[in-house]
Amino acid sequence: MSATFTPLASLKGRSVTSATQFSRADIDALMKLALDMRAHIEAGKTIDALHGRVMTPLFFEDSSRTLSSFCAAMMRLGGSVVNFKVETSSVNKGETLQDTVRTLDSYSDVLVLRHPKEEALELAISAATHPIMNAGNGAGEHPSQALLDTLTIHAELGAVDGITIALIGDLKKGRTVHSLLKLLTHNFDIKKAYLIAPAGLEMPPEVLQQVSADVRSRRIQIEQAAALTPEIIGDCDVLYATRLQKERFVASAARDASAMAAFESAKAGLLIDKACLAHAKEKMIVMHPLPRVDELSVDIDEDPRAAYFRQMRYGLFMRMAILYSVLA
Amino acid sequence: MSATFTPLASLKGRSVTSATQFSRADIDALMKLALDMRAHIEAGKTIDALHGRVMTPLFFEDSSRTLSSFCAAMMRLGGSVVNFKVETSSVNKGETLQDTVRTLDSYSDVLVLRHPKEEALELAISAATHPIMNAGNGAGEHPSQALLDTLTIHAELGAVDGITIALIGDLKKGRTVHSLLKLLTHNFDIKKAYLIAPAGLEMPPEVLQQVSADVRSRRIQIEQAAALTPEIIGDCDVLYATRLQKERFVASAARDASAMAAFESAKAGLLIDKACLAHAKEKMIVMHPLPRVDELSVDIDEDPRAAYFRQMRYGLFMRMAILYSVLA
Amino acid sequence: MSATFTPLASLKGRSVTSATQFSRADIDALMKLALDMRAHIEAGKTIDALHGRVMTPLFFEDSSRTLSSFCAAMMRLGGSVVNFKVETSSVNKGETLQDTVRTLDSYSDVLVLRHPKEEALELAISAATHPIMNAGNGAGEHPSQALLDTLTIHAELGAVDGITIALIGDLKKGRTVHSLLKLLTHNFDIKKAYLIAPAGLEMPPEVLQQVSADVRSRRIQIEQAAALTPEIIGDCDVLYATRLQKERFVASAARDASAMAAFESAKAGLLIDKACLAHAKEKMIVMHPLPRVDELSVDIDEDPRAAYFRQMRYGLFMRMAILYSVLA
Repeated sequence: MSATFTPLASLKGRSVTSATQFSRADIDALMKLALDMRAHIEAGKTIDALHGRVMTPLFFEDSSRTLSSFCAAMMRLGGSVVNFKVETSSVNKGETLQDTVRTLDSYSDVLVLRHPKEEALELAISAATHPIMNAGNGAGEHPSQALLDTLTIHAELGAVDGITIALIGDLKKGRTVHSLLKLLTHNFDIKKAYLIAPAGLEMPPEVLQQVSADVRSRRIQIEQAAALTPEIIGDCDVLYATRLQKERFVASAARDASAMAAFESAKAGLLIDKACLAHAKEKMIVMHPLPRVDELSVDIDEDPRAAYFRQMRYGLFMRMAILYSVLA
Repeated sequence: MSATFTPLASLKGRSVTSATQFSRADIDALMKLALDMRAHIEAGKTIDALHGRVMTPLFFEDSSRTLSSFCAAMMRLGGSVVNFKVETSSVNKGETLQDTVRTLDSYSDVLVLRHPKEEALELAISAATHPIMNAGNGAGEHPSQALLDTLTIHAELGAVDGITIALIGDLKKGRTVHSLLKLLTHNFDIKKAYLIAPAGLEMPPEVLQQVSADVRSRRIQIEQAAALTPEIIGDCDVLYATRLQKERFVASAARDASAMAAFESAKAGLLIDKACLAHAKEKMIVMHPLPRVDELSVDIDEDPRAAYFRQMRYGLFMRMAILYSVLA
Repeated sequence: MSATFTPLASLKGRSVTSATQFSRADIDALMKLALDMRAHIEAGKTIDALHGRVMTPLFFEDSSRTLSSFCAAMMRLGGSVVNFKVETSSVNKGETLQDTVRTLDSYSDVLVLRHPKEEALELAISAATHPIMNAGNGAGEHPSQALLDTLTIHAELGAVDGITIALIGDLKKGRTVHSLLKLLTHNFDIKKAYLIAPAGLEMPPEVLQQVSADVRSRRIQIEQAAALTPEIIGDCDVLYATRLQKERFVASAARDASAMAAFESAKAGLLIDKACLAHAKEKMIVMHPLPRVDELSVDIDEDPRAAYFRQMRYGLFMRMAILYSVLA
């Protein structure tokens, strides 16, 4: 019970707003802490460090995976979670975000905020006296997701430096892949990133602009494509697929009869399945933030390279590392 | 705090799917453990055995009594409960049951599943790496209910062997009474079971078929009737009533004007109230899984033979015994 | 962890139904305990006294502030909270309040009840074997609110005796201000209470009647007004504002076109803002039970006299003091 872990000391009492707030050394420290906690938990031991501490999630949009993961992380550290429901709260009586935050901040040691609007995060931080964990702020960031993705690569492949990764799917709206690309190009010497998206859903120019200095200084290759090819698959250490939503595709393509056909065709070019993995290296991983629709076939679920279920478990340990560093 | 309890060792790390997975010795061990825990709790002591362990209930249909009972059981063992809500989860985005189970399995030490479809249980178990507690799978089983019913009889009457029990009400759809009849006839030498149901709601032939070998080998008497009589009441150690729903009755009787009259008449013949208990033994108990409609009168709530509120508390201790055996 | 606190011993195992159940000595003891706990928590320490104990809130109407506060209080004492949802419970199947209470009482050490009907509290207490905390029973009481309000005054101003307070807003329907006025006039030697409400929303005669004996015996001045004046503001140690709801105002005034104008005019006379505080003492506090609409301006949020956010935190500690006294 009384194992001691080494927190990321600089995170104590601070909010987690963006993946870019962490240096390479910070990320390495969080990853080591997360893996130490994993070893401890998987040896059947428990942690009591946050006993008597209270976390309140404040989710203005549904994200049950992130919510469950943060809650379980807090509980596995010995802490407690207040079950606050936005939909039955004073938000319905016109209460401002700041007043809602101040209320929960009065009772809690840490808040976890999910909000559809990017600017909500700063408003919340300005109102709170305790740290806030950003669990997704609209088009903004989702830092714990980018950190858990990095941890997954690190733990599964032994290193993040030197890898070749393909980000696949809706790269336009995918906050997850934006954050991950920034984190990998800024903090790691990755070799190459393929950006694979159908027409209309490409990685936004502003994200490419943001990473360009890092890409140049670290000599990272970036290559864009509209479909996965056997050559790309064979070159990758990580295939990172994201959900491809028909609604978004149709909305961003022409709204005519041919749009559906274009969607089906684009989807076929992005599908990750058994046939696709036949071209892949023996030591590589497939990742996906889940939930999946049909861009990721269940026919590879039993393949040892399918890391997307283990990825969720790395998420638990990364969030434990974060909460422990912030609160312990 | 540091009391030691004797778990049912064979249950460690295993799922609880069916009441039939337990031998007589298993049931005796669980009942002893549950009563040991009751004595401990009622002496004002607490248990810390599952501190740092995480349970996630996954309820695809409402059953707040079973849910609250499992949650309180986990908490009284020192464990924590993730509040996962199916209705705001990725199930809405088309996520399969297996993927939802894998997600929660990533964060949890044990899942509790309630699902309207019988086959969901096996799908969930195949996807999970941790044990799953079946809290009702459609027309299938609800093993913790059958075990808590048995514990109630054992604790209230001193023994289950030798009893005469009447199962009363809708015996056709009642998963609870099916499981209980199987458990009692398979594992205990009960003397007699009255099966009392209105026309159209009798115990299904397949259940009777399943228990027939046990009934013959143990010389258990089975007697069917359409109404409670003073003779039956006077003969019983246990009157076990279940909810009688007008909708089901009318659906299974003729859908004409006389159906309502038939329902009222049938209900009158099954009612358990003060007048009914006037014919009962001094030492006997009335049970009901609750909620009740009007087949069970509040006019006996204060009668010491009314065991249905204590039955819920036995449920708490039986679920503590199960979770402790699975996880400790 | 193992700090010892002095509970209000007479509260052990008892329900909290009304602010009037407490003597002055009781209130002093609860306030001292709450402040002792605050000092402990704010020194970064935790409390484990209620580990393994289970609280179940039973909220028949939304009140997420009170709910979160009680939950966090239980958790900060080391206890656990069952997340019972009335809306998906057997209440939907016609279960009576008493049966629902008996169910949760079977699993829990304490219940917290919020109900729109005043008589629900007594029904619940008669059905339960464990203590019930009244968290608001319709037009009845909300004792923990009155106690936390008193604690706020005591902690912020050093004493409750001798203060001058203005209760402002909808004094007709405001259960909070009714309870507070009774508590202050019955148990404390306050100097003066201004009751400031627009026409039609005045403090009800029956409340004035109830406090009249105390007011006379303690020589407390009571003065009614329809608007805040610079003189009143300058005289007060506490300005206690409550939410002013347009619907209620319009409903209780004439339902014609002039009602809106009357509402706007009344509201202007009750507004607490920066201009208003210019007339106030340097050492005084503004309180509000929240949520606010626009009777309380955000332009004073940073003023040190704005105590309404700290008031919520006093609520946490008062509820910890109550639960500790009832359960420890």
